[in-house]
Amino acid sequence: MTVTDNKTLPQSLLPTLPGSAYSDPELFAQEQAHIFEQMWFCAVSSADIAKPGAFRTVQVGRESILITRSRRGEPRAFFNICRHRGAKLCTEESGEAKRSFQCPYHAWTYDFEGKLIAAPNLTKMPDVDRTEYGLRKVHVREWLGYVWVCLADEPPSFEDTVISDVRNRLGDVEAVEHYGVENLELGKRITYDVKANWKLIIENFLECYHCATIHPELTEVLPEFADGFAAQYFVGHGALFGEEVKGFTVDGSEGLDRIPGVSEEQDRRYYAVTVRPQVFINLVPDHVIIHRMFPLAPDHTIVECDWLYLPEVIASGKDLSKSVELFHRVNQQDFDACERCQAATNSRVYAEGGVLVPSEHHLAEFHNWVLSSLTRNP
Amino acid sequence: MTVTDNKTLPQSLLPTLPGSAYSDPELFAQEQAHIFEQMWFCAVSSADIAKPGAFRTVQVGRESILITRSRRGEPRAFFNICRHRGAKLCTEESGEAKRSFQCPYHAWTYDFEGKLIAAPNLTKMPDVDRTEYGLRKVHVREWLGYVWVCLADEPPSFEDTVISDVRNRLGDVEAVEHYGVENLELGKRITYDVKANWKLIIENFLECYHCATIHPELTEVLPEFADGFAAQYFVGHGALFGEEVKGFTVDGSEGLDRIPGVSEEQDRRYYAVTVRPQVFINLVPDHVIIHRMFPLAPDHTIVECDWLYLPEVIASGKDLSKSVELFHRVNQQDFDACERCQAATNSRVYAEGGVLVPSEHHLAEFHNWVLSSLTRNP
Amino acid sequence: MTVTDNKTLPQSLLPTLPGSAYSDPELFAQEQAHIFEQMWFCAVSSADIAKPGAFRTVQVGRESILITRSRRGEPRAFFNICRHRGAKLCTEESGEAKRSFQCPYHAWTYDFEGKLIAAPNLTKMPDVDRTEYGLRKVHVREWLGYVWVCLADEPPSFEDTVISDVRNRLGDVEAVEHYGVENLELGKRITYDVKANWKLIIENFLECYHCATIHPELTEVLPEFADGFAAQYFVGHGALFGEEVKGFTVDGSEGLDRIPGVSEEQDRRYYAVTVRPQVFINLVPDHVIIHRMFPLAPDHTIVECDWLYLPEVIASGKDLSKSVELFHRVNQQDFDACERCQAATNSRVYAEGGVLVPSEHHLAEFHNWVLSSLTRNP
Repeated sequence: MTVTDNKTLPQSLLPTLPGSAYSDPELFAQEQAHIFEQMWFCAVSSADIAKPGAFRTVQVGRESILITRSRRGEPRAFFNICRHRGAKLCTEESGEAKRSFQCPYHAWTYDFEGKLIAAPNLTKMPDVDRTEYGLRKVHVREWLGYVWVCLADEPPSFEDTVISDVRNRLGDVEAVEHYGVENLELGKRITYDVKANWKLIIENFLECYHCATIHPELTEVLPEFADGFAAQYFVGHGALFGEEVKGFTVDGSEGLDRIPGVSEEQDRRYYAVTVRPQVFINLVPDHVIIHRMFPLAPDHTIVECDWLYLPEVIASGKDLSKSVELFHRVNQQDFDACERCQAATNSRVYAEGGVLVPSEHHLAEFHNWVLSSLTRNP
Repeated sequence: MTVTDNKTLPQSLLPTLPGSAYSDPELFAQEQAHIFEQMWFCAVSSADIAKPGAFRTVQVGRESILITRSRRGEPRAFFNICRHRGAKLCTEESGEAKRSFQCPYHAWTYDFEGKLIAAPNLTKMPDVDRTEYGLRKVHVREWLGYVWVCLADEPPSFEDTVISDVRNRLGDVEAVEHYGVENLELGKRITYDVKANWKLIIENFLECYHCATIHPELTEVLPEFADGFAAQYFVGHGALFGEEVKGFTVDGSEGLDRIPGVSEEQDRRYYAVTVRPQVFINLVPDHVIIHRMFPLAPDHTIVECDWLYLPEVIASGKDLSKSVELFHRVNQQDFDACERCQAATNSRVYAEGGVLVPSEHHLAEFHNWVLSSLTRNP
Repeated sequence: MTVTDNKTLPQSLLPTLPGSAYSDPELFAQEQAHIFEQMWFCAVSSADIAKPGAFRTVQVGRESILITRSRRGEPRAFFNICRHRGAKLCTEESGEAKRSFQCPYHAWTYDFEGKLIAAPNLTKMPDVDRTEYGLRKVHVREWLGYVWVCLADEPPSFEDTVISDVRNRLGDVEAVEHYGVENLELGKRITYDVKANWKLIIENFLECYHCATIHPELTEVLPEFADGFAAQYFVGHGALFGEEVKGFTVDGSEGLDRIPGVSEEQDRRYYAVTVRPQVFINLVPDHVIIHRMFPLAPDHTIVECDWLYLPEVIASGKDLSKSVELFHRVNQQDFDACERCQAATNSRVYAEGGVLVPSEHHLAEFHNWVLSSLTRNP
């Protein structure tokens, strides 16, 4: 996969990736192997596995991963596969194991550290090592109130990838720490089933040239977005709320209680961060919105979106609907646009891809990152 | 792909194409590239795009094509893809654009000639040529009241392909002109979803060996069809109505007003013409039936069938149901038979295909044409 | 496809087949070609085609096969494809032909021996030999009240395959003859749609290490199954009913009339036989249960299961539900477990497969047989 020679384009334009990059099953398999199964992947919310034995199962790359919490309260992640004959250990999306995970086929039983602790006739097989035949482990980190997993044998540095993406966008990592995301609580979760390639969703999130056309509510709240320059175009920049706007809501009305740590500079501003390969962080004074993408096929991506508020806001029972509705509409508008682009990726007139206007030129950096990831990672 | 050596068959029999010719996805992709995306393709009725800006979107080969009419009333066809980031321009099957086609993603806007006439910040990109970055054009012709398109860079001669197929069948092209098809109006359109290869549908239309078995109504109206020789077997021949038959209707009752240009020779006769690769023209004194095929997969073809009558017949509100019902039944009977044949194309005992009896021997010409098209066209 | 080097496993464990053996479409195509289309395949019950012209159509490997009975009462099997243009001869799953099979496309007509006996204008094609252009024949045998077919040109010895599998399991073939299976009648047939590879279903049937975990009703009736050793582990062994158990029913209550030929040794015992590649025979004193598998895809198998009783039991109208319910539950429990295993077969941590504990070691023989079949058969 290569990008079109720039010389054939006028100076105002840069090429996108070729059409096949968004539809070729072979390339997608490479992305699964070299990106989603190699990098840190934001899998579930810490609150989804609140106590020991609580679990969620999610698809990471091509694998079903079981995420739970140990007796000591530490997150743990395993391939969701019994070591004996390969039965899926947990078929539910979420649940709570009492003492252990027991395979419902032959009753091989594992503790929350993944160790094999029982099986019929196991005592007659003394040469079967209980750690060696424990569940296959996956690397795990907890940050910003989410559990991040890595399926690589040798995971990349969390600092040099996840943290670095945040720092490069916001200028410093403290900027996000002000929001105390790990202390917020879930106000709303919406899951979107998007019939488009994950890279189209990232490209869409990175630019705001489309904002004036498809986001009437958002550009009303963030007037500078109507000019086509996204918050992510400038390092450290957050888009300022309109003068008449009281809060980050669908009609610009008052929002919820401001998060205490948010600085004066950050007040009345919207910050967007893309953490490659599958997370969007959206920061506003009174809440944080986190998107996690689960790419399933070249033309199919599940997006799980969480709206997070102060615990006292959630506890108060205040109406969140106008707050949630703004970005829910943005999501729908964006994902519709991405689905519209998916079809063309197979056309012969899109074989060399499309073009990026000046306010989209920074997308080329993402394209180069994708290309280099496919060759760099094992 | 080759056909079986004739020497292995008795003289009475000729081979069909091998089974894989009807089911192999690779071969179908070649047919899309070398036949449907290279030849003149009858896409929509002229009446479907009656005035400037009226449009229809259709699949031609593997591409979505947007067909509309210019301000000067001329048909125009484009790849239905925005030049910027590849969004589908029109997602509706049909509609009417007021002044232009505007992409709903970033508002790039094109006139009815395909020229780029507006885009956000376009004035700041003076090096972006508005014709160069206009919609990708497709060749277009209007004939017999239909819009024919050609996706090839250099289209084949319309005269040597479409017109020639009509002339070879009817003896001369004037024979079809008598019916003034472009002046007729749509009485009924039925769309059939056929789970069979497009070549099975053409083979079926070319022969009448099956007529006695599956077309009781048709052989009642056209008694000579019961003998197994199709109208298309003899150049210039039209099948004569039965003596008691009053019109080309499901029960042989009176038809509608005769088309004035139809000659005495042509009266009380049914003529069938196959225009390769995807059109059937059926001529009877009081109406014309046009089939257009849209091959979507090796085993999936959409057939859009139009029944056309004199404008005064349509205006009168006369009952067309007995007239339409005859060929609607024929269509259903034929397409059922084609679907029945599709399954066998994967069987090992059909690997070398089936056999053609003498009254089907002319199908070998179609088979040879398919084979040569795959190698001849670029 | 090779199995993992045993040296890497502790002595207690043997490897299963690698994960891809259960999910790779290429390998499944080879299994269709080298196993299901080469070996004797138990297709339909003799009673399904009770008289001349009665027929059933079934999928054997990748082919649709028409099975019927000749005028002399002998079973006959043909590829279900007309020799002329390949139309499917019989589209129904079952039915009764009066005098012949007539293709509904062009009326080519075949007798119950497959001979071409009529076709429009056939008399004008004297060089078309009516046997040569008859239906393509498939080898056929009737045994145990079932019709077994073989699609190979040269079928393997029925004695050395089917009969041999029974003898190797039961010690001698007379053991099954005691049950007079061909004289029993169908009490119940249930068809299961299983989303799992056929080999997982066989492996499951071969071992009882899972019985204590998933079969509470069965282990109640057959207490020794709770220990994890299957009836099929020992040659000639049948699992003894529990002391309190009166019959092979879901609650251990009284069964139906005992089959007269069943020996004292066989009474109050359950025998299981696997006839490769797709039949399970289950013998208990008062009935016989026969499973036939129809593998359709790497991850999709249809299982047709028949419960057979003495004719006088069927005639009496006695309640069979508790008798049927026992193995119906076992089937559901087993097939759920197989479906649970299917997903893992694509995982990178199951690439080398799983492990077999000592009471499953005999499954390795089945694995070796699969591997050798793929290379041995043409």
